[in-house]
Amino acid sequence: MSEILIGEYLFRRLREIGIETVFGVPGDYELSLLDLVPKVDLKWVGTPNELVGAYAADGYAREKGAGALVTTFGPGELSALCGIGGAFCEFVPIIHIVGYPTSQAQASGKILHHTLGDLSYDHYVKMSGQMSCATAILKDAYTAASEIDRVLNDMLYHSQPGYIGIAEDVAYSKIPVSYLEKKIATTLPENNPDMEKKVVKEIIRNLESAKSPIIIVDGGAARGSWEKFVGSLVDALKVPFFTTILGKGAVDEQNPLYGGSYVGVGSLPSAIRAVEDSDCILWLGNLPSDFNTGMFSEHVKTSMIIDFQRFFIKVGDAKHDAKMIKVLPKLINEIKSNSLLATRKSGVELARPPKVPMPKGIGQDWLWDRLSFFLQPGDLIVSETGTSQFGIQLTTYPTGAKAWTQAVYGSIGYAAGAAIGLSIAAKEMGTYKRMVLITGEGSLQLTVQAFSMLNRHGIVPVVFILNNYGYTVERYFNGWEAKYNDVPMWDYSALFRAFSPEIKVKAFKVSTAADLDSLLSDKEFRTANHPQCVDMTMDPKDAPMLLKGVFEAKSKAIRS
Amino acid sequence: MSEILIGEYLFRRLREIGIETVFGVPGDYELSLLDLVPKVDLKWVGTPNELVGAYAADGYAREKGAGALVTTFGPGELSALCGIGGAFCEFVPIIHIVGYPTSQAQASGKILHHTLGDLSYDHYVKMSGQMSCATAILKDAYTAASEIDRVLNDMLYHSQPGYIGIAEDVAYSKIPVSYLEKKIATTLPENNPDMEKKVVKEIIRNLESAKSPIIIVDGGAARGSWEKFVGSLVDALKVPFFTTILGKGAVDEQNPLYGGSYVGVGSLPSAIRAVEDSDCILWLGNLPSDFNTGMFSEHVKTSMIIDFQRFFIKVGDAKHDAKMIKVLPKLINEIKSNSLLATRKSGVELARPPKVPMPKGIGQDWLWDRLSFFLQPGDLIVSETGTSQFGIQLTTYPTGAKAWTQAVYGSIGYAAGAAIGLSIAAKEMGTYKRMVLITGEGSLQLTVQAFSMLNRHGIVPVVFILNNYGYTVERYFNGWEAKYNDVPMWDYSALFRAFSPEIKVKAFKVSTAADLDSLLSDKEFRTANHPQCVDMTMDPKDAPMLLKGVFEAKSKAIRS
Repeated sequence: MSEILIGEYLFRRLREIGIETVFGVPGDYELSLLDLVPKVDLKWVGTPNELVGAYAADGYAREKGAGALVTTFGPGELSALCGIGGAFCEFVPIIHIVGYPTSQAQASGKILHHTLGDLSYDHYVKMSGQMSCATAILKDAYTAASEIDRVLNDMLYHSQPGYIGIAEDVAYSKIPVSYLEKKIATTLPENNPDMEKKVVKEIIRNLESAKSPIIIVDGGAARGSWEKFVGSLVDALKVPFFTTILGKGAVDEQNPLYGGSYVGVGSLPSAIRAVEDSDCILWLGNLPSDFNTGMFSEHVKTSMIIDFQRFFIKVGDAKHDAKMIKVLPKLINEIKSNSLLATRKSGVELARPPKVPMPKGIGQDWLWDRLSFFLQPGDLIVSETGTSQFGIQLTTYPTGAKAWTQAVYGSIGYAAGAAIGLSIAAKEMGTYKRMVLITGEGSLQLTVQAFSMLNRHGIVPVVFILNNYGYTVERYFNGWEAKYNDVPMWDYSALFRAFSPEIKVKAFKVSTAADLDSLLSDKEFRTANHPQCVDMTMDPKDAPMLLKGVFEAKSKAIRS
Repeated sequence: MSEILIGEYLFRRLREIGIETVFGVPGDYELSLLDLVPKVDLKWVGTPNELVGAYAADGYAREKGAGALVTTFGPGELSALCGIGGAFCEFVPIIHIVGYPTSQAQASGKILHHTLGDLSYDHYVKMSGQMSCATAILKDAYTAASEIDRVLNDMLYHSQPGYIGIAEDVAYSKIPVSYLEKKIATTLPENNPDMEKKVVKEIIRNLESAKSPIIIVDGGAARGSWEKFVGSLVDALKVPFFTTILGKGAVDEQNPLYGGSYVGVGSLPSAIRAVEDSDCILWLGNLPSDFNTGMFSEHVKTSMIIDFQRFFIKVGDAKHDAKMIKVLPKLINEIKSNSLLATRKSGVELARPPKVPMPKGIGQDWLWDRLSFFLQPGDLIVSETGTSQFGIQLTTYPTGAKAWTQAVYGSIGYAAGAAIGLSIAAKEMGTYKRMVLITGEGSLQLTVQAFSMLNRHGIVPVVFILNNYGYTVERYFNGWEAKYNDVPMWDYSALFRAFSPEIKVKAFKVSTAADLDSLLSDKEFRTANHPQCVDMTMDPKDAPMLLKGVFEAKSKAIRS
């Protein structure tokens, strides 16, 4: 009977579900496990620390469908938790593999490094259990394979992180290779056909009777799994469509029916009118969190919403047991063959973001408008939580661009790490052209060592740093002049170079709109095939108009 | 009746227990709480990320007796957990204050940023509860004061981290100022006098009958609380004394009775003989973890040990309910007045680490010996987990130097952050002269943004970077040639400058022993009053002799 090491079994399962790169930081409890990584044609990408690793795995998973992170028991896994929390919250499937002390060492009754010194080995799995859809500590060759399969199946089913603890002795135990024959379920089970037909019919009926139907492309319900249908839906239905902060970047914004972002009071007036006056809203992956809804400043009647979720679809108040990813292709077909829907034209008036005249300094509203003309088809765009995330709602992406931001969890420092994983995933998929990372200097300070990776692995990033002397978005919350909202001034250009001294990179420092405009128009800059970084000095108290509007709304909503 | 805001009450309690600086990263759930920091004459020191903040608070607490860290709910607190885990493991009291969403926001039933999106608010406190001796989420003005007091009392009693969650609305509720009258207990309760006398008598009897008594200065049992007695004990008893990895730096090594480090097989032969042949070992703060015992390669009979712990003293197999910190001063007095003990002379032969001839490259054993002559009285020395921590056992510290390392938890990246807190604490205590930080480049990569703080706040560090192309200590565990033990090459000198461009710093790169020797002898370098960094290129496969010996022992102990 042919056998396989349990560690190899685990990694072969990862390959099976489409993972080609494993991120992480080595630690002695996992080293011999890592020896097995190349044996199954997986690539190891070491990260400067675990938090950057977790964010990279998150970015990778958003693009590729699943990601993997390997850390060591204790310090290693703990330092990754913030990244895992964000993945749990935003439905990103990451398998977090943790190297445990051997069974013999655990049974020794001696105090091992990385433990809390109390001879317990279950503290950390309990902690991760709070933000994982499944956890397992592999114990022996009898149960390891089924435990691995359970966690991976759960991870893909719920599209949330799973946790597997594995010690060296278990990793090197053998199990029958035939255990691999039954595959991990990479797609959700089919809907009940009758239920599905009923739901599709009901949606069609709603659409037929609607006067002003629209689509909102949001980012919840595991966006990566269903976004492939969005373009077809939009093309078939030919109604105005909008994006939320979380959904922006999943659909072609050059389509004349694109009406911009809908973020409550922070939206363009034309978008507010179109959405809030609509009598039928197909809302894909609705995730009504504070940031994603403009601090709950949306005014949409529930009865008008057809709410597409991972495991259900809600039409008004009626909740149906049907998974959106299975319903969407059938709905699109029904629309295409429906003569009324296929020929109807929308009368809704849409507007593009207003042109902003060039200011002296790098004004926020001008910047975001200007970026629309810098971005190129095929760009992968990551914007950081905070100012960038709100500002970029007024940027219109070119066809074929794809963009992501962590809008619900809102962990600063995320973008720089995620950009690594997104790039590597796109390279594996053959779709990589350029990474455009837009972040604030306050956020960048948390994970600045990500520069080390962004300039390697064949990634060619253009990094824009909003350098505005501190946490501007927090000034809008509280502490307009407070010292705690300042951050120390770093030389970002020098840092960009110093993290990869052997690589040709270019770093620019600009403080006027005219200079930035020239740079963005410069052919060499636009077509460079080396990493570039633009440190933009900006007014600490300027903010994108959307953010200003939204924070006014927050003051009203939460502080009243 | 005079009243006080609950937030202010909390911060006044921190001042009361000796905390003058609060570390952290601002986040919107905590911003208005931070407005109260300066009102009670506390200083806010923002850190580039939460992990660096937690390490800084840990360093501060080791020197000052207690430390404080403020982070935001969710991402902020999670990113600090690795630092909190180390503090729990090594008995460092840190109060982790977390800014929570307001009660109204929590009750709204809406999805808030930084939550896991499931409307639950207790995930994070459950996680921190695994590594805190007490936790509290402040709910209202009726219970807040007693909850704060409970957590702070527990924190100081156990000398481990405590966790307090506080929302803006609670922080701004008022309570009677009279609640402050009953003070937080900053010292442990007295021992039962009869029990204490009995224990002291028994220890004296053991010492009197012993032929070759010695002292081992370890680092457990909350070292910071008892180390002030070590010098007096050593002076009174006049027997050879040794340090462990965790205890090194707590006692004057220029004393002729200092016999070096005892780390099992990794020790000097004279130390092994003296310790393992001793018939009475006063072991202060024994913490027998793997790293701290040379991978359990110590050979000492339990019956010979008088084990001094925070809450008990064990003489051979008999465990007595007596706290070491109360017993020590009485024991010292008894020794002083005991004519036999006061006049006895030790016949044990001690040796200093062997002189190592200067090699061509910067050889490990030469380096650690050479550092003995670079260090100065009053230096504060922090060595990183791994190579530095093992190597520095062969360095002899000057009188008045104080040194720390995280030897039990062993979280790489710790040293750079802890150095910040240790320096700031020493400055507040008026004892600060110079910070000497010794770390490896692999470890530094995790928390390199600590440079930003090490070069500010009036800290004048000398940073030595063991730049040996990867995780050398892990090569000794596994993966001698493995790619996963390599780290990308950064320009550390440029980084040192770029993190504080407005400050005069000097950075050196050396790769030969001769050049390093010249630099260490250079008067300007030795007396500089600006931050300095030395990037030392070293052989990736060279290691201190102690580490080599210990890893051989580990292979035998754990892999067999």
